Amino acid sequence: MELLKQAIKERGKALSDQVLKVDAFLNHQIDTQLMIAVGHEFSARFKNDGITKVLTIESSGIAPSFTTANELNVPLIFARKKKSLTMDDNVYVGQVYSFTKKETNNITVSKDFIKKGDRVLIIDDFLANGQVALGLIDIVKQANASIAGFGIVIEKSFQPGRDQLNELGYRVESLARIKSLQAGSITFIE
Amino acid sequence: MELLKQAIKERGKALSDQVLKVDAFLNHQIDTQLMIAVGHEFSARFKNDGITKVLTIESSGIAPSFTTANELNVPLIFARKKKSLTMDDNVYVGQVYSFTKKETNNITVSKDFIKKGDRVLIIDDFLANGQVALGLIDIVKQANASIAGFGIVIEKSFQPGRDQLNELGYRVESLARIKSLQAGSITFIE
Repeated sequence: MELLKQAIKERGKALSDQVLKVDAFLNHQIDTQLMIAVGHEFSARFKNDGITKVLTIESSGIAPSFTTANELNVPLIFARKKKSLTMDDNVYVGQVYSFTKKETNNITVSKDFIKKGDRVLIIDDFLANGQVALGLIDIVKQANASIAGFGIVIEKSFQPGRDQLNELGYRVESLARIKSLQAGSITFIE
Repeated sequence: MELLKQAIKERGKALSDQVLKVDAFLNHQIDTQLMIAVGHEFSARFKNDGITKVLTIESSGIAPSFTTANELNVPLIFARKKKSLTMDDNVYVGQVYSFTKKETNNITVSKDFIKKGDRVLIIDDFLANGQVALGLIDIVKQANASIAGFGIVIEKSFQPGRDQLNELGYRVESLARIKSLQAGSITFIE
């Protein structure tokens, strides 16, 4: 997606060969027009897949998944990293391992909102090691719902997440695929 | 806002005389069309106030503030409850006291995104004790920016947040004002 790649080039920054900073438009300050374009693109790619729910995880996944869900005319559900005050035990729990923190954390989704028969599109801002994706897959499986695929805003293609999801048989649509962040330079897989 | 009050009545639940559960449309599952209507209403109320930035806090504030910022055609910034991996020390830090947890937590906003001269509209899903609002006010003050007012989706009017903000001189626009949640019944200030 050219508009997104342009934003990454002009407003993003390679902080190291692993870390891309995009807080000017995606995960701290949000460019709403760009997010609408992102949602439009995801919607176009999945519009014939019978999506009934869009699922993401708080917080940075919310903006791009909001615009996608709105265009597909289905509800958005965001998984919580902490159980909220109003959540009871009627939840699916998935686990997410963090390589940075070397710890496993639970993520939760209420059983009220993903049901047997739902066709789920999973959206996230980044795909790197794929650990969040695995936690979300587990939740959808617990619900006896099916996964139409993954919509990823920025894929760090030099990390194993995408290959792992493809090997598990999932379709992955990434709007920008980062080949490398080495030497402070952002290059894409074209 | 009648559409919102209707959603609260039909899809919300008074879990106690203090706690309103609205996870079917606002803070876990999100009704995107309702959030667009909420954004339209906030935008109408603040359209002549020279807003340059919309500020909220992750996660539940993101959806209603996204639609508001988009309609006002300004960037959205969400304060973080934890510093992200890509955040350096170039941040404003505000403090939020939690009555439930009896602890004070830091919230952060990068100095890159709120500047002197900005006119900020603060949006949140709930206004109860007003502690989050105080933390966000502090951040805007540190930036030497000004606050045009608060846009609140649901105000729990039986808690002190609104009065406190009014006493400090801030304009508060709440789209639904809850008078009471007693005996499982949701009543509004009309």
